[in-house]
Amino acid sequence: MSYNTTGRLLRLTTWGESHGPAIGAVIDGCPPNIPIKASEIQYWLDQRKPGQNKFTTQRKEEDKVEILSGVFEGLSTGTPIQLLIANKDQRSKDYSDIKGTFRPGHADLTYWHKYRNRDYRGGGRASARETAARVAGGSIARSILNSICPNIKIKGYLIQMGEHKIVRDNFDYDAIGKNAFWCPDAKMADIWSDYLIEIRKSGDSIGAMIEVCAQNVPPGLGAPIYAKIDGDLASAMMSINAAKSVEIGDGTNVASLRGSQNSDEFFLENDKLAFRSNHSGGILGGITTGQDIICRVAIKPASSILIPKEAVTLKGVATEVVTKGRHDPCVGIRGVPVAEAMMALTLADHVLLHRAQCGAIKDYQF
Amino acid sequence: MSYNTTGRLLRLTTWGESHGPAIGAVIDGCPPNIPIKASEIQYWLDQRKPGQNKFTTQRKEEDKVEILSGVFEGLSTGTPIQLLIANKDQRSKDYSDIKGTFRPGHADLTYWHKYRNRDYRGGGRASARETAARVAGGSIARSILNSICPNIKIKGYLIQMGEHKIVRDNFDYDAIGKNAFWCPDAKMADIWSDYLIEIRKSGDSIGAMIEVCAQNVPPGLGAPIYAKIDGDLASAMMSINAAKSVEIGDGTNVASLRGSQNSDEFFLENDKLAFRSNHSGGILGGITTGQDIICRVAIKPASSILIPKEAVTLKGVATEVVTKGRHDPCVGIRGVPVAEAMMALTLADHVLLHRAQCGAIKDYQF
Amino acid sequence: MSYNTTGRLLRLTTWGESHGPAIGAVIDGCPPNIPIKASEIQYWLDQRKPGQNKFTTQRKEEDKVEILSGVFEGLSTGTPIQLLIANKDQRSKDYSDIKGTFRPGHADLTYWHKYRNRDYRGGGRASARETAARVAGGSIARSILNSICPNIKIKGYLIQMGEHKIVRDNFDYDAIGKNAFWCPDAKMADIWSDYLIEIRKSGDSIGAMIEVCAQNVPPGLGAPIYAKIDGDLASAMMSINAAKSVEIGDGTNVASLRGSQNSDEFFLENDKLAFRSNHSGGILGGITTGQDIICRVAIKPASSILIPKEAVTLKGVATEVVTKGRHDPCVGIRGVPVAEAMMALTLADHVLLHRAQCGAIKDYQF
Amino acid sequence: MSYNTTGRLLRLTTWGESHGPAIGAVIDGCPPNIPIKASEIQYWLDQRKPGQNKFTTQRKEEDKVEILSGVFEGLSTGTPIQLLIANKDQRSKDYSDIKGTFRPGHADLTYWHKYRNRDYRGGGRASARETAARVAGGSIARSILNSICPNIKIKGYLIQMGEHKIVRDNFDYDAIGKNAFWCPDAKMADIWSDYLIEIRKSGDSIGAMIEVCAQNVPPGLGAPIYAKIDGDLASAMMSINAAKSVEIGDGTNVASLRGSQNSDEFFLENDKLAFRSNHSGGILGGITTGQDIICRVAIKPASSILIPKEAVTLKGVATEVVTKGRHDPCVGIRGVPVAEAMMALTLADHVLLHRAQCGAIKDYQF
Repeated sequence: MSYNTTGRLLRLTTWGESHGPAIGAVIDGCPPNIPIKASEIQYWLDQRKPGQNKFTTQRKEEDKVEILSGVFEGLSTGTPIQLLIANKDQRSKDYSDIKGTFRPGHADLTYWHKYRNRDYRGGGRASARETAARVAGGSIARSILNSICPNIKIKGYLIQMGEHKIVRDNFDYDAIGKNAFWCPDAKMADIWSDYLIEIRKSGDSIGAMIEVCAQNVPPGLGAPIYAKIDGDLASAMMSINAAKSVEIGDGTNVASLRGSQNSDEFFLENDKLAFRSNHSGGILGGITTGQDIICRVAIKPASSILIPKEAVTLKGVATEVVTKGRHDPCVGIRGVPVAEAMMALTLADHVLLHRAQCGAIKDYQF
Repeated sequence: MSYNTTGRLLRLTTWGESHGPAIGAVIDGCPPNIPIKASEIQYWLDQRKPGQNKFTTQRKEEDKVEILSGVFEGLSTGTPIQLLIANKDQRSKDYSDIKGTFRPGHADLTYWHKYRNRDYRGGGRASARETAARVAGGSIARSILNSICPNIKIKGYLIQMGEHKIVRDNFDYDAIGKNAFWCPDAKMADIWSDYLIEIRKSGDSIGAMIEVCAQNVPPGLGAPIYAKIDGDLASAMMSINAAKSVEIGDGTNVASLRGSQNSDEFFLENDKLAFRSNHSGGILGGITTGQDIICRVAIKPASSILIPKEAVTLKGVATEVVTKGRHDPCVGIRGVPVAEAMMALTLADHVLLHRAQCGAIKDYQF
Repeated sequence: MSYNTTGRLLRLTTWGESHGPAIGAVIDGCPPNIPIKASEIQYWLDQRKPGQNKFTTQRKEEDKVEILSGVFEGLSTGTPIQLLIANKDQRSKDYSDIKGTFRPGHADLTYWHKYRNRDYRGGGRASARETAARVAGGSIARSILNSICPNIKIKGYLIQMGEHKIVRDNFDYDAIGKNAFWCPDAKMADIWSDYLIEIRKSGDSIGAMIEVCAQNVPPGLGAPIYAKIDGDLASAMMSINAAKSVEIGDGTNVASLRGSQNSDEFFLENDKLAFRSNHSGGILGGITTGQDIICRVAIKPASSILIPKEAVTLKGVATEVVTKGRHDPCVGIRGVPVAEAMMALTLADHVLLHRAQCGAIKDYQF
Repeated sequence: MSYNTTGRLLRLTTWGESHGPAIGAVIDGCPPNIPIKASEIQYWLDQRKPGQNKFTTQRKEEDKVEILSGVFEGLSTGTPIQLLIANKDQRSKDYSDIKGTFRPGHADLTYWHKYRNRDYRGGGRASARETAARVAGGSIARSILNSICPNIKIKGYLIQMGEHKIVRDNFDYDAIGKNAFWCPDAKMADIWSDYLIEIRKSGDSIGAMIEVCAQNVPPGLGAPIYAKIDGDLASAMMSINAAKSVEIGDGTNVASLRGSQNSDEFFLENDKLAFRSNHSGGILGGITTGQDIICRVAIKPASSILIPKEAVTLKGVATEVVTKGRHDPCVGIRGVPVAEAMMALTLADHVLLHRAQCGAIKDYQF
């Protein structure tokens, strides 16, 4: 039972506060002889890194990762991999005025309730800075998948920002990396750009919906009943800062559907099993079908805004807060690489679990 | 690492198949000296029991629980509580014709992928019958909460069936138990009644949305980062059969909101901290605020319908299935007591976790 | 975190009290398609069964096992296997006079300290009756090993009873099953027979030393640092009732040795790695070498004796106890099948762990 | 399920190799508001530090600890505490000649069997250097105990080196810190000094027996059946490098005892429960009695000796090895602070476990 560890056999433990000397992750359970390069972890960290464009916080963090253990001559040894990311651009004084105040929508109040102790600088442990450690861990998970199930492809993207949803007919995988929003709809990306500038100017923030798709996942991953892969994804995704929902496949929409609409019928195509649809999001009974895994996560608008809000001090006095500091107007954007990392971690974990109980991973056969 | 166990310190392990001799649950980690009565567990099981009205399956199961261990002279001893529920009305022959066929929308295919072995009778381990064991375990969790946090109230209800959502203005807690649907909107219950009769007649099934509300939860329960109470709720709820989404508070809707709309401002009311709203669903940073915990789960329409669907046999031959047997036209209804049980289990688990790390549970104080 | 569960991936949860309606075990994580027969489990249970000869308790328990789940048409399905053993010969009234008294050397006092609640009948959960559930679980573990590593042989035996140790030169595997003591030294078995009759007549009991040897274990099982196979064996063996020490290989004797004596040199024999000795007991750095695993467990003399002992009542009054009831004069004898079961469970667990991280189990190759 | 994590609620994860850039530990589950000082952790690390006298390795390691997270303004925050110890004096070239050779008695062979990959420099992860991370973690555990159970005292010492055992009648707690061997028998310390000089001169090494005593432990810690405190101690102690046995109380000696000798009778002394003896080592049924916890661990002689030994290369060629490098002639000496740390970690973990299930820790009362 660990508070700061996720995964069953591939165990990611993250540590560190926003304004401490460093943050990091230990990954335990990595198979041996997996190629691990700092440059590759860095590649994924750079996707999440702040200060990359005008739509994200201007905190300047290099987010440079150091591998302190578990890798020898470029290969994982099977022992714990410690990844350390030094904090460089902490402006802790930005936070001195909130030292004695609970900010609405933040974890200030609840950490105080729980611990009667609180590292108030930048949200401490509750800061989204912790997600850098997830992305680093996710890179290890990708390397594991690459060795065992090399066809798996994981892709995250934003499908909604505030009132603007993408048009599914415009969906283009190649567009995702070509705009500041991981948006698969190039036209919508332009609309979001104007929209987000307006929101930032008004001192406000906006929510977003992330979708992550995993392709070419072998069938048979996951396990009943409390190790269902959708149960594990739900927990992994909901643990992301500001996440308020997790959906698999048709998600909330299934409440509106009839059984005759929702069943994903199958048939034979070139002697292989094929599906007419994928309402299930690639998971039945907690186990993968071999179809794309589709998962969506709603990210609430950041609570750090320039618009004054009612608050209360630690001493129980009414006050008002305006969050200065350097913040993302849409935290959902930088949440995309984080959600991808959580998908990679969950899949790699279940690949190992499957090997344990059922032996080698196989493709479907009659 | 257990496949069939949920919870961190209060551990529920369920076992059993739909058509085996019995199903059951072991609850480990229950504090000592908690009053446990078979009659009370039975009360909750009876809420979930099939065959109670025309809207649920006509399988006749008494679902009579036996306490085999862990309770002495009416009190928990602190050792594992084994609860056994005999299966009585298995009509396994109903299933002989699906022995060799994968049914679309069921776990038949994925269990086969995983295990190359499958108890096809009534879905085996994938059957919703397993949820009786959860309800039994949830009753123990309620008894624990009743001893340690007696003010907590947990209530589940349906807020949507197919295209019909309840009207929030008609919400009435007292109405919930007075109709066949756990519907808090008495007028909507009448509409649902006609609607469901029509669906059943057409041989179809329908999805639904469950909401569970926990009131008077002490602030401070939950823990960063991978033991967040919303992360644990997400996993617990998503593990329910047919669940396809989990939402906390405003859920998917936060994607549309601005920070200025979503922040739950606080103020002082009679010297106590009070909130202007509860968009967060009672959880910030993975820890309870003391407000109501609000959680929603979408339940897909049952895949067992009378309308023929394309399918494939174990030998890879195209075929068609019609599910006869005895099935629920809206499995969401019987999912309500199950979702309540998962809420009770999650809260009781976090109460114990909190005691471990932080000592006694306290109400908020400045 | 479970109190009553052992194992990492192959999880044994036992439940039940000495004088409740039944005891049992849930085994979760069993690979699919392992042949499981009730008759085979029964075979192992019969080794441990009380009342078999004059040297064990005369409690008459059939110890008949029922498989309630997880096995379909003779094969494991991969889902939890519930094994139930009804209690038949509870003479609870034998215990009514110790209801209010803490017996020295028993867990009466400590359970009361912990729980302020105690099922005093026959020791409740602290009874060695719980070990029947371990033996049942161990049978499943043997079946798993039989499928994946069919050459592994596990054999337990007594090497010491009180002041009498076996003579290693007389060691004969075939003798083990041919006397009432699992003694590999036929001559010593005769001496023990007279010795134990004398001890029982004097109303006393005697300690013993169990050794368990596992042959043909593949090299490479186990994992640093806190999943070492010797660490897991230590925990598994020490959890046996009345166990007071666990030794691997030369055990306590290594304190007396020099490095030059203790090193197990290796050389080449027919192009294969061979060892000059096995001081290490088949484990180096927590990982198996491929040599025999040797583990010893000291079992204290039963505290239930006819000789009066000072005690104290629940109310804090000095008293004296004589344990009547039906007891084993040397509990170490019936501990042998239990220690074998714990070895089987630990090895099977590590076989699954190894597959998870490193893929298929292989024999050593250069 | 973690390979490199120990503890149930207080979770110590260690990472790092002997010759990598650093080693360290993450401690998760620490209660909030525990005073944590780097200087205090350093104090304990200095007990274990190499190069302190002529009887330990001359590797010069400062073992300077840095606290990277989880502590704010001198108090634990309840979030993970990352402790980092840089490696300074790696002479990796000392190991280049064993790069291609399996050394007898080392984990070289078994790591290769398991992982087909091996950081050969200084034993990599199998190096006793890892135990510095345990000592650092143990310091946190001591601080927790100090806050919750301030009377607990933990003391480790050597009771045997090779053929020389201490004389119990000379036992003097105050002597322990006053010689180079943590020896409680001042006269024996002198004998050991000459003895060990002779052993080192002969290029050999010697085994030892550690005893750890924990005083003033409250009764009621531990839990049946697989969370027994002796089971957890067994696993914690056996995980120490070179440990080959774990004994509780009379340990292996119970095999020789009669029930009438072994029972720890109790009586009333000033209205409080008192014991006539402590054969049980303070634990009955896996739960503490309130007496001293006594635990012994046999440490094998280091396999790194100057006397040539038969070995085999990675390519399967017979060879011979002499271990140069800088090594301890009696690794048991530096094992003493490590065994103390494991005791502290186990007790602190069980204090938290007890609070979770049973509420506040209390002294015994009728």
